[in-house]
Amino acid sequence: MAAFMKFLSLLQNPSETEQEGEPPKNILEDKTIFPDFKTGPLNKYRQLSTFCYKRMSILLEGEEHIRLKHRIWSFLEKHPDFQHDLETPSLEHQRQMANKRCQLLWDQQFYGLSDYVSAPNLSLAMSQGMFSYEFSFAVKYSLSNYMFPSTLLSLGTERLAKYAAKIGNNEILGAFALTEISHGTNARGMRTRATYDPKTREFIIHTPDFEAAKCWVGNLGKTCTHAIVYAQLYVPDDTYQGLNAFLVPIRSERTLLPFPGVTVGDLGEKIGLNGIDNGFVLFNQYRIPGENLLSKTGDIDEQGNYVSKIKDSRKRLGASLGALSAGRVNICSLAYVALSKAITIATRYSACRKQFGPEDSNEEWPVLEYQSQQYRLMPHLVTSYALRIFTMWIGTANIDMTLRNISGEDTSDKGMEIHAISSAAKPVCTWAARDGIQECREACGGHGYLKVAGLGDLRNDNDANCTYEGENNTLIQQASNWLISLRRSEADFEKVSPMGSVVFLKDMDTILRTKADVHSMQEALHPDNLLKCLNWLVAYQLDVTVRRFESLKKQGQNAFETRNNIQVFNAQQLSIVYAQRTIYFVFHRFVNELPLSAEKKVITQLLSFFGAHLITKYIGIFYQGGYFQGNTHTELYQQGLLDLLPVLKKEAISLVDAIAPTDFILNSPLGMSDGNVYQHLERSIVLAPGVFERPSWWRDVTYKEYLQKAKL
Amino acid sequence: MAAFMKFLSLLQNPSETEQEGEPPKNILEDKTIFPDFKTGPLNKYRQLSTFCYKRMSILLEGEEHIRLKHRIWSFLEKHPDFQHDLETPSLEHQRQMANKRCQLLWDQQFYGLSDYVSAPNLSLAMSQGMFSYEFSFAVKYSLSNYMFPSTLLSLGTERLAKYAAKIGNNEILGAFALTEISHGTNARGMRTRATYDPKTREFIIHTPDFEAAKCWVGNLGKTCTHAIVYAQLYVPDDTYQGLNAFLVPIRSERTLLPFPGVTVGDLGEKIGLNGIDNGFVLFNQYRIPGENLLSKTGDIDEQGNYVSKIKDSRKRLGASLGALSAGRVNICSLAYVALSKAITIATRYSACRKQFGPEDSNEEWPVLEYQSQQYRLMPHLVTSYALRIFTMWIGTANIDMTLRNISGEDTSDKGMEIHAISSAAKPVCTWAARDGIQECREACGGHGYLKVAGLGDLRNDNDANCTYEGENNTLIQQASNWLISLRRSEADFEKVSPMGSVVFLKDMDTILRTKADVHSMQEALHPDNLLKCLNWLVAYQLDVTVRRFESLKKQGQNAFETRNNIQVFNAQQLSIVYAQRTIYFVFHRFVNELPLSAEKKVITQLLSFFGAHLITKYIGIFYQGGYFQGNTHTELYQQGLLDLLPVLKKEAISLVDAIAPTDFILNSPLGMSDGNVYQHLERSIVLAPGVFERPSWWRDVTYKEYLQKAKL
Repeated sequence: MAAFMKFLSLLQNPSETEQEGEPPKNILEDKTIFPDFKTGPLNKYRQLSTFCYKRMSILLEGEEHIRLKHRIWSFLEKHPDFQHDLETPSLEHQRQMANKRCQLLWDQQFYGLSDYVSAPNLSLAMSQGMFSYEFSFAVKYSLSNYMFPSTLLSLGTERLAKYAAKIGNNEILGAFALTEISHGTNARGMRTRATYDPKTREFIIHTPDFEAAKCWVGNLGKTCTHAIVYAQLYVPDDTYQGLNAFLVPIRSERTLLPFPGVTVGDLGEKIGLNGIDNGFVLFNQYRIPGENLLSKTGDIDEQGNYVSKIKDSRKRLGASLGALSAGRVNICSLAYVALSKAITIATRYSACRKQFGPEDSNEEWPVLEYQSQQYRLMPHLVTSYALRIFTMWIGTANIDMTLRNISGEDTSDKGMEIHAISSAAKPVCTWAARDGIQECREACGGHGYLKVAGLGDLRNDNDANCTYEGENNTLIQQASNWLISLRRSEADFEKVSPMGSVVFLKDMDTILRTKADVHSMQEALHPDNLLKCLNWLVAYQLDVTVRRFESLKKQGQNAFETRNNIQVFNAQQLSIVYAQRTIYFVFHRFVNELPLSAEKKVITQLLSFFGAHLITKYIGIFYQGGYFQGNTHTELYQQGLLDLLPVLKKEAISLVDAIAPTDFILNSPLGMSDGNVYQHLERSIVLAPGVFERPSWWRDVTYKEYLQKAKL
Repeated sequence: MAAFMKFLSLLQNPSETEQEGEPPKNILEDKTIFPDFKTGPLNKYRQLSTFCYKRMSILLEGEEHIRLKHRIWSFLEKHPDFQHDLETPSLEHQRQMANKRCQLLWDQQFYGLSDYVSAPNLSLAMSQGMFSYEFSFAVKYSLSNYMFPSTLLSLGTERLAKYAAKIGNNEILGAFALTEISHGTNARGMRTRATYDPKTREFIIHTPDFEAAKCWVGNLGKTCTHAIVYAQLYVPDDTYQGLNAFLVPIRSERTLLPFPGVTVGDLGEKIGLNGIDNGFVLFNQYRIPGENLLSKTGDIDEQGNYVSKIKDSRKRLGASLGALSAGRVNICSLAYVALSKAITIATRYSACRKQFGPEDSNEEWPVLEYQSQQYRLMPHLVTSYALRIFTMWIGTANIDMTLRNISGEDTSDKGMEIHAISSAAKPVCTWAARDGIQECREACGGHGYLKVAGLGDLRNDNDANCTYEGENNTLIQQASNWLISLRRSEADFEKVSPMGSVVFLKDMDTILRTKADVHSMQEALHPDNLLKCLNWLVAYQLDVTVRRFESLKKQGQNAFETRNNIQVFNAQQLSIVYAQRTIYFVFHRFVNELPLSAEKKVITQLLSFFGAHLITKYIGIFYQGGYFQGNTHTELYQQGLLDLLPVLKKEAISLVDAIAPTDFILNSPLGMSDGNVYQHLERSIVLAPGVFERPSWWRDVTYKEYLQKAKL
């Protein structure tokens, strides 16, 4: 009777149970964050693991970070407009939903300006929360709400403050237009022109031809009202003043129709990220107010002259494009997000998928039991951990530098080092994600090729990370240029390295004289020894690159030729090993600082695997430089890795549990936390629209005369 | 006046010019095959090249092969139903078009049965012709017209001959159903069951649950009328007779509706190949006639007993699945087709795309001028040539073996060797395409990320090649198993190797004692010396793998464990280097047999580059095994490659001209033969539907209240 009365009262006051109340104070007890996993094939592996996945998760990201991303995930999971599609929507619908989702998320203000002031590092959690759901909408959100306003803030002055309120109110939608059809990497070669007209105090923006059209501009294709446009500035008498940024009205804030003089269109379908309306624009003698020049680095004075504190137009451009480097730091995190989802899917699936088994048994083995499958997955699982730690570190460092910079501190050394690290690490992280996602796709076999498995979309979306904000192969040269110039100028490596990424090079000459000094697997895989080995690798690669540089110079090559001709085998490899060694260095320090725990024991094994795996990729260089001799060294590292495989196999499921998003966010039947792969797969397949339907064109198949007549 | 009369007469008798007449006898003069390229930015490079791209093309493929593929391309280009879409059609429409295109191509009979009898090797040209256009429709065509009928022919007996006419008449459409939802690689673990009912002389086909549903079956999702289904055969008294193949009616040949007892559906969207309707099927006590057992390896006799000449059910299965190996040989060619299209696009674009330049000049350089870009592209261009030669060789050999086999010859040695080569080469070729296409995508920068560039589709379609007809990582074990058993049994390497891929191993012990004996770049890059180097690599890798095998056995591991635990660093690597060395070996012999010519000179440089590039990938192993010592060797190969870059750069455009399909088939604005990249790109972008349209949901952007109300 009491139960019935309770039931009746809930029918009348349903809100009584809907209120979720305060989450538990102890995050470990918060079931929305750390649910009890349902029973299933993954139980076995969860019981084998020696550590607590919840505590591991907290070690990696911290409680507040975890709470914020779960608040976002929880909102998305409950909202009708964030429910997953059962088939790929039309391009138009993808655009519509990305736009809508941006606005819906913005309305929630999960992480607003006041949050940034009180807890700046949590911006990393906000970003992870969005990007884990889906890349298109999250890129659109970031462009509109971070990149556009922050560029306006950093390059503009107070006279554009009125736009801040409009952005905050979602009344205008911005875009960032730098790349042109025939110029991307070489910003100085751009040809969109801004001519100052002193009579009307206006700029006339003009695009000479289609090759000079701004392109690849996110939000420009269909939705933006304004764009920050980079154009070559000419003042009266045709004096050239370099590339400058302008705030250019594109479409009406009411009708969303483009203004006369603006030809704006959509770039069309892409390999991925199709929710974003990348666009192109041509300006035809299009006039904008003089105040719309973003004037922090230079301005037009009352007399119509261009005045700047920075005399060198190249340095002005450098300052102006500096805003892009935060983007590179963020992309490292996005690569982590994509890779960690892929490895979660492939690892869980490999623990459930059974195939073959010992000859004396009818039981088949989960494919995770096989050495070859373990070695396909483990490097990427370990890399996910390395990237998690590294991207938290560099993300935090970049935020800290930005805040110090705003408060007037001189952060130029730190800024230069972050620029170098991120220029090398963005390629290394996005390539790690590229290769890891692909391996996960293949490791899931045929079912990994299904769209619903999610691996194709992760690959297609991450693919863009390899190109935008600096094409990887071009960007990577920035780091080697810096390292070469430090070595050649005999720089003080401690002074130039507040982040610590090159401090070890102060002993470069000593390092170059060392040889591998490990005599057992245990010694070889000791984290400190692995670091020594990687230190030698970077020092050696820097040394050979500088020698090649000097030798080409001596042969009479000019600076341009020399720079071009040291890339293959030398400078490129230098940047890559520098980034990899930095990621290891940060991982190593992180592990060293942990107090003793079951989690520390396992994460130390991951560190050893990560370092040893890196070293096996460069065995050729270690021999070539004389650091390794004989065949013992190679065997120590290889056998060390092989011996770690069965150890880490037991931890694998808990390791992915610690970095996996919720099932709703992961959205792959192969990777669900209960491991009931085939039930989820069946549901995904049979619930797709039209699965059992006869096609409307069935007569084409069975009446071949029908098709032949139709041809005529 | 005469001109006017001519004009008038053509108005009245337009067919007079439409007739194209006979193509020129001399293929070099046939403009439909070798057109005069339009003037454009590629001229410069074409003038730099030292050889004739037409002659190169003929060297690679032969005149008849080229003529046939061009006849197909020419038909496709002119047919309305083969015109390219401007945006990705719906899944339904992709399926419809793939089906229609298959039938339209079939009607043309470009290469029918009588052609196969007179010129079997031209089947390679037919395949290239189709797959160069688009993978989905070509896979569907191959399944329907080659794989299904040839499996029926090779596993069935005369009593199923009546189906041949129906296939030939396009009255029935077939599928090949082996894989199940939870069993792909492990065929013996499959659970679809066929029980013989002696009373009615029928088989009862039954699927116990969704996990046993046949899946990934091409043509099954929407279109097939029949499927060859593999099921575990049980005869009365529940005697198990192993996995057998049955011809199972799926849908009505008139209504295309499935028969009662058959639950058949579509697997849904995939990463690529969406024109193919891959499907799944569950049978519910579904009865088929007894004669529908494909009975070449075994049959039910009058008394209802299973009788077979092959007593061991595993051997029967082996014979039954042997039909799959032709598929692997063909997939190597498909990988070539995809890679050669990608490298054509990226190389031509790199010759047109300008970026940066010397500081003392206003001219920008084509990106192909930069060492780093050259080294991104050249390995894949060279690999394209290697794969072209290798896939023609193995394709021809496989056809030859099939024909000899039909004529009763014992081809078991050759069959085993082709099985081993194709098991290792299918992974190596498809991974080469995977990595090459990806590098090309990135090397084209942002524009390479556009759907119209075509690189995304090539990647997505080739991706399936890594998985079907034997998942690469699993398949590759076949070759190492063979090599290990040859070495352990001290086999006669000449006898077991009619194809010549392991003859060199008869001197294995001598080879193992050799060391690198090259002292100049010229010596190092000499094709004969490169072969020696690769011979050592395979011998060494076989030796260490066998040693590891023996050592694990001595440690008490059983056969199953030993096989699993020698994979990483040993057996897998062995298979890969064996395939690579075989590809080099075939390339080397091909070049050696060419008469002197300008083409031979260039292709010899490609051979050197290919070999040296392979060797630089394995420097670690060469040092580890003591074949290299000091740092000189590495430098010889690396410097050799660097020195070849500027030489091959001049040949690059003619090299891709020699392997490129026509512009219509290539279908990428970045890779058109006239090099007018930006004109084609502009056209592709502005002609896509809705480019300049305001979206129908524009109010969501400018009236945020509108969106908020809509939410309620």
